[in-house]
Amino acid sequence: MTVSYTKKVSDCKGFGSFWRLLFRWRGSLYKLVWPDTCVYCMLYFLCSMVYRFGLDEEQRRIFEHVALYCDYFRNLIPISFVLGFYVSVVVQRWWEQYLSIPWPDSLALLCTAYIGGRGERERSIRATVLRYVNLCCALTFSTISPRVGRKFPSYKELMEAGYLTPREMKVLENQRGRSSAALTTLPMMWACKVVEGARTCGYVRDDHGLRLLVAELMALRDKAGMLVRWTDISIPLVYTQVATMAVYSFFSFSVLGRQFLDPGQHYTNRTIDFFVPIFTLLQFVFYMGWLKVAESLVNPFGEDDDDFELECILERHLKMSYLLGDVTPSDDPLAEDDEDD
Amino acid sequence: MTVSYTKKVSDCKGFGSFWRLLFRWRGSLYKLVWPDTCVYCMLYFLCSMVYRFGLDEEQRRIFEHVALYCDYFRNLIPISFVLGFYVSVVVQRWWEQYLSIPWPDSLALLCTAYIGGRGERERSIRATVLRYVNLCCALTFSTISPRVGRKFPSYKELMEAGYLTPREMKVLENQRGRSSAALTTLPMMWACKVVEGARTCGYVRDDHGLRLLVAELMALRDKAGMLVRWTDISIPLVYTQVATMAVYSFFSFSVLGRQFLDPGQHYTNRTIDFFVPIFTLLQFVFYMGWLKVAESLVNPFGEDDDDFELECILERHLKMSYLLGDVTPSDDPLAEDDEDD
Amino acid sequence: MTVSYTKKVSDCKGFGSFWRLLFRWRGSLYKLVWPDTCVYCMLYFLCSMVYRFGLDEEQRRIFEHVALYCDYFRNLIPISFVLGFYVSVVVQRWWEQYLSIPWPDSLALLCTAYIGGRGERERSIRATVLRYVNLCCALTFSTISPRVGRKFPSYKELMEAGYLTPREMKVLENQRGRSSAALTTLPMMWACKVVEGARTCGYVRDDHGLRLLVAELMALRDKAGMLVRWTDISIPLVYTQVATMAVYSFFSFSVLGRQFLDPGQHYTNRTIDFFVPIFTLLQFVFYMGWLKVAESLVNPFGEDDDDFELECILERHLKMSYLLGDVTPSDDPLAEDDEDD
Amino acid sequence: MTVSYTKKVSDCKGFGSFWRLLFRWRGSLYKLVWPDTCVYCMLYFLCSMVYRFGLDEEQRRIFEHVALYCDYFRNLIPISFVLGFYVSVVVQRWWEQYLSIPWPDSLALLCTAYIGGRGERERSIRATVLRYVNLCCALTFSTISPRVGRKFPSYKELMEAGYLTPREMKVLENQRGRSSAALTTLPMMWACKVVEGARTCGYVRDDHGLRLLVAELMALRDKAGMLVRWTDISIPLVYTQVATMAVYSFFSFSVLGRQFLDPGQHYTNRTIDFFVPIFTLLQFVFYMGWLKVAESLVNPFGEDDDDFELECILERHLKMSYLLGDVTPSDDPLAEDDEDD
Amino acid sequence: MTVSYTKKVSDCKGFGSFWRLLFRWRGSLYKLVWPDTCVYCMLYFLCSMVYRFGLDEEQRRIFEHVALYCDYFRNLIPISFVLGFYVSVVVQRWWEQYLSIPWPDSLALLCTAYIGGRGERERSIRATVLRYVNLCCALTFSTISPRVGRKFPSYKELMEAGYLTPREMKVLENQRGRSSAALTTLPMMWACKVVEGARTCGYVRDDHGLRLLVAELMALRDKAGMLVRWTDISIPLVYTQVATMAVYSFFSFSVLGRQFLDPGQHYTNRTIDFFVPIFTLLQFVFYMGWLKVAESLVNPFGEDDDDFELECILERHLKMSYLLGDVTPSDDPLAEDDEDD
Repeated sequence: MTVSYTKKVSDCKGFGSFWRLLFRWRGSLYKLVWPDTCVYCMLYFLCSMVYRFGLDEEQRRIFEHVALYCDYFRNLIPISFVLGFYVSVVVQRWWEQYLSIPWPDSLALLCTAYIGGRGERERSIRATVLRYVNLCCALTFSTISPRVGRKFPSYKELMEAGYLTPREMKVLENQRGRSSAALTTLPMMWACKVVEGARTCGYVRDDHGLRLLVAELMALRDKAGMLVRWTDISIPLVYTQVATMAVYSFFSFSVLGRQFLDPGQHYTNRTIDFFVPIFTLLQFVFYMGWLKVAESLVNPFGEDDDDFELECILERHLKMSYLLGDVTPSDDPLAEDDEDD
Repeated sequence: MTVSYTKKVSDCKGFGSFWRLLFRWRGSLYKLVWPDTCVYCMLYFLCSMVYRFGLDEEQRRIFEHVALYCDYFRNLIPISFVLGFYVSVVVQRWWEQYLSIPWPDSLALLCTAYIGGRGERERSIRATVLRYVNLCCALTFSTISPRVGRKFPSYKELMEAGYLTPREMKVLENQRGRSSAALTTLPMMWACKVVEGARTCGYVRDDHGLRLLVAELMALRDKAGMLVRWTDISIPLVYTQVATMAVYSFFSFSVLGRQFLDPGQHYTNRTIDFFVPIFTLLQFVFYMGWLKVAESLVNPFGEDDDDFELECILERHLKMSYLLGDVTPSDDPLAEDDEDD
Repeated sequence: MTVSYTKKVSDCKGFGSFWRLLFRWRGSLYKLVWPDTCVYCMLYFLCSMVYRFGLDEEQRRIFEHVALYCDYFRNLIPISFVLGFYVSVVVQRWWEQYLSIPWPDSLALLCTAYIGGRGERERSIRATVLRYVNLCCALTFSTISPRVGRKFPSYKELMEAGYLTPREMKVLENQRGRSSAALTTLPMMWACKVVEGARTCGYVRDDHGLRLLVAELMALRDKAGMLVRWTDISIPLVYTQVATMAVYSFFSFSVLGRQFLDPGQHYTNRTIDFFVPIFTLLQFVFYMGWLKVAESLVNPFGEDDDDFELECILERHLKMSYLLGDVTPSDDPLAEDDEDD
Repeated sequence: MTVSYTKKVSDCKGFGSFWRLLFRWRGSLYKLVWPDTCVYCMLYFLCSMVYRFGLDEEQRRIFEHVALYCDYFRNLIPISFVLGFYVSVVVQRWWEQYLSIPWPDSLALLCTAYIGGRGERERSIRATVLRYVNLCCALTFSTISPRVGRKFPSYKELMEAGYLTPREMKVLENQRGRSSAALTTLPMMWACKVVEGARTCGYVRDDHGLRLLVAELMALRDKAGMLVRWTDISIPLVYTQVATMAVYSFFSFSVLGRQFLDPGQHYTNRTIDFFVPIFTLLQFVFYMGWLKVAESLVNPFGEDDDDFELECILERHLKMSYLLGDVTPSDDPLAEDDEDD
Repeated sequence: MTVSYTKKVSDCKGFGSFWRLLFRWRGSLYKLVWPDTCVYCMLYFLCSMVYRFGLDEEQRRIFEHVALYCDYFRNLIPISFVLGFYVSVVVQRWWEQYLSIPWPDSLALLCTAYIGGRGERERSIRATVLRYVNLCCALTFSTISPRVGRKFPSYKELMEAGYLTPREMKVLENQRGRSSAALTTLPMMWACKVVEGARTCGYVRDDHGLRLLVAELMALRDKAGMLVRWTDISIPLVYTQVATMAVYSFFSFSVLGRQFLDPGQHYTNRTIDFFVPIFTLLQFVFYMGWLKVAESLVNPFGEDDDDFELECILERHLKMSYLLGDVTPSDDPLAEDDEDD
């Protein structure tokens, strides 16, 4: 589930509210970074042991020179700049992907306004249109989200969940040869046919209504199509590799370069021996954490703590369509108002 | 209340106008930063006392080495870069959230143009539509803003404030089982039904009018929905934690690292002893202030001085709907113009 | 008046064209920065005099240590980063505010196409609608621009300038109790009523025309409302204070820190005594100039050289409305073309 | 083919998922950078050989001074800044170009809704309109993508692929004298005529339908035109040259400057001789890789691994149009639903 | 003419494609930077000569101190930061200005669909509307582009080029007293009148068509107006001056500061004398080139190699209007198709 903490930080009185966020585990820096940090520490202390106990005096002098060399020259790796620009591209794409998720609320309002009757037939039309929209969402989400994909591995599960009638399932299966893009478009074409038929039969009150409904279906289809494209077109691999390699090589050299050296040798800034490299670990946590921001956002429909929960959104969409089809006169504050006129 | 100072800085003659802003308290850097600064100073002077009076000569030498080490290596923490990119993401989201606040002025113009009569019935239709819009705003705002939430903890208060009729309240209460998203959509569905009914009865002058009204209601609903989503989907927690920890760890190490050391030891750049670490404090204030910019903007509907005042906006919306329903012939400059024709 | 130099830099042959811009005074760096620079120089030379003539040998040594300390540590202030991000936020807002200025040209085209007759009545309708738009602009501009506010301190001046009829003024005065937002909306509501009435009487040729006109009026109202909101919601005060204090504290410490010290003491990079601190002054001019960019753009409707001239735009809008109402058959190249058909 | 890896990085459990991307070859950093790296190594080791074996003692001292000089002063080249800003401009344009690719799915929905019949004539109209859209895409793509250009070097191939009838080919050939922009517009003009004719004959159900169809054709034409313009208007050559020269000159000086010098001379940070300049190579790979990001994205319709595959998109569009024309009653879940009413 | 090289860089196989761009002259860095570089070299070598041959021993020591001082302190000028942010603002505006150029292709499609007849009258209407659009473009372009301005210095030339009839010229001349904004709006008002008249006479097929045509004319007018405003509202002069002065002062101090000093004096990093300051020149070329990017893009309608060629676009628009008016039945693949129905 998306980690939502905005309400916890509604004011910054006293010492502010961000420090409280530091004690969270779900979706946190610690949770993401601890395995890498463990490996890093292991490597570090291995080197440290070798240096302290496994080398004779002369070998230690050589080790020290190599360490100083690594420490100095790893700074040639432009890690801040590359990460900064890369992460800002990823964060921007992350949010735009969120905005591409189709949301059927506007369609519900349109149905209320233009397919407004309380008869059985009108309800069925509204329900069918929304069902097709939900079907399109479900088909789309199951190609981009592994979780939804596991929930609906085939049309059968979709049928059981009420997204498909057996007849529709058969049609979709006949089309299996076609591209998947066409398959997600089909339900929207059916929805268009339904509203067009409803207009012909007079259930849609005027041509403007038909037009608004069709335009909204087009907009929803566009968003669904865009979602797939976001997933198909990744950030160019080169860019991701440059950022990843920068971080990894920076820290693999720091294993050597940031060893505590014999203070007796009086190397610059090496006058003290702490055993535990606090600052190096902090630096590791920050840069690696920054990279993890990118890793968890680059596919926001995955299974990270911070990814968008498409299966919840799907369920919400279903509920919305029930609401629309269900509203009975007794639930409707306007029922009598209208009669007053 | 939002701190508005744009009008005070309308020109930059003489010494400019920004220096005058430095003497403000509400929403100011000082107000946000002073508790942290106090704690920081306390810790700093505690360390200082220990160093100056609590240690013997040899312990002081060790302390000095630790201090120099902290001072040098805290610069490995990429605080500027992380904060710069983080704050610019936060500021951008802050403004986009402001733009998501629904504003019923356009709807008011539409009502004037298309539900234009001066009769009792037309007025009531206009008032009802705007009331539903206000109700939707109130329901939405009360979920995202603690202040509005306290003002309207339940439907009863909304009814007393005139947003709900008792009948509508009952309908809403019947739906309590449903998701809250559906609840905020309901009033808009009612509004759609009202305008559709009004068109059927001829109070809306043409089909274009109905369409514009429905489209505007959809747009308002979209904005209200977007507001909730802005709050649900926070900036990924990792990113916030990276920025926060960078600042906090940077300054916790500076407590040791920026101590004034014995000038007699001739450490580089440590040739003078001021007792009060002016530059360190300034640096603390700037970076912590920059972080506070993020803290106070990350939830712009909270209770900070600089947050948007949703309760004022709600009141303003109410007044606008009165204006629309109220305008009597004697207030209307066109009353006679029309008769001239 | 806005300083417009784009046409002067239409090519960059030879030595380019930007160097020519350095010799301008209106809206220039020099004009904005000279008072601060003078004060800065005064303080600098005061310190310089004290150091050179007012202190004995031992005091000068202490002064030198303080100066070196200030020089070194003022670099802890993250001035470039803070200013860079802050100014880019300000520049973006500046341009978006410009784009929010309402422009009635599209409305004029719509009137031409849909309220097209040459009769007295049609002309009067066109003129009235545009007058109301101009009135809305004038009311809005007078709340955000001090210059327009001085020109039209009350409704009386607006009436004298032809924006208001005495009757309308009375209506507005009756509404004085209401919020100002409602007041700027009122003229647009009148305009909507006028076009609706015109449609009823057949002066607007079809329902599409009415719809386009109402939609355009809504768009203009939106822009006018947005203008006010840009002014109400300033960039958070904390952000502005951080940027301002960074610059000011940076340079107040440089007064001490950049003094020319006795070359005889052989401090690093202090081997020469110029009396006039050229580089420090340049640095002052650049950073202070960068801050002044922000100061003059943060309120683009103020009285700086580079602010948008709302009073000119108002006059231009008026002329446009005259053009629209005035065009006589003899000015119209289509007059006879139409007859040919 | 575009390198798509988003699905491989759906979560970042354990050690995250980015390290797995480091072992890819297609579209990878290694594939792009290896030729440059080889040349760079060759030059480096040539210099190294000359220095180690080809020079006498005195010449080596001079060589060392030149090397130190190169090493120090190449840092004057602002490579990070220039590359950072340049690459972020390129990445932004790359994505906007992707968004400009015309996509006929919405048109398909519109046809379904408004040209809905199952008769021969309706099918033919739908197929023709979509064929013209595909033709416009094909003509546009063949001017911007070398691959599509090779596939369709002349109208004959387009005719054979079914985009053109012989008659249409003749018309296009008659227009050969005209600008190519006009040629890509022609099919859209035909499509407009087809839908207008269809409306006249009653195959388009209402005027709203005609309007939506024409508006969608305009939008598709706009996108196709925009695609061409993205290609015509490159990022200013100067900017590209500055970024390229910065990288190239930086590394040509590092061939000399980063040589391992005789440790016996005790130059700062030159105390060790590794023979293989690991850090210099890493730095080369990162900066050159960053430049390659720009090189492969600056023309996203080219033949790089990461370029958009316009020929696949064209084929997909064709399939979509078949789907639309083909749907037979037996495929249509609504066929009987409608009869039920 | 705009320098278009996108097609040359369609792939980055082998050594990539950017190095090939380095050998171009039109629109290149070299072409823009060589005059400044020459002057810079002259000044540099003048100083160099004075230092080497014109000073006695003591004066040279002073010169050296001044040089070291200049070299060290010019780094206080924040040139990278200021240039980076400034250039990114300029590049963004440059592209948005390109997008503001009006393009009549959509209007052409609309005319085809809605004023579709092949009669003399319909053709004349289409041609007239497009002529007015072209006239609006020509009037607008001639105020912002010096080249178009020279081509059409007065209405007479426009008339001769076929944009104006003598009658229309007279009307425009009568309006000369009015603001130029009004003048560019007039042709669009005429165009609106023409389409409105055409609708009245039945040449436009329905009200939707009239609406789309008027909306498109409004959009074109908006773009034309926006073009003028982009030129009127320059980037604030202060910002441009700060960036320019930063570059110029940085390099005027480097004339002194980067002189090769007597290696015999053993100043740090001054151990070698090359006579030709390669790195300083490279640095000059990069920063000056970066500034030239800004200089050539700040007015993209000027006469630089890389500016948009408005006169070509004008001609293209003319051709498009001929195409639209000209298409004869024999050119029309649908001519017989229609008859088949």
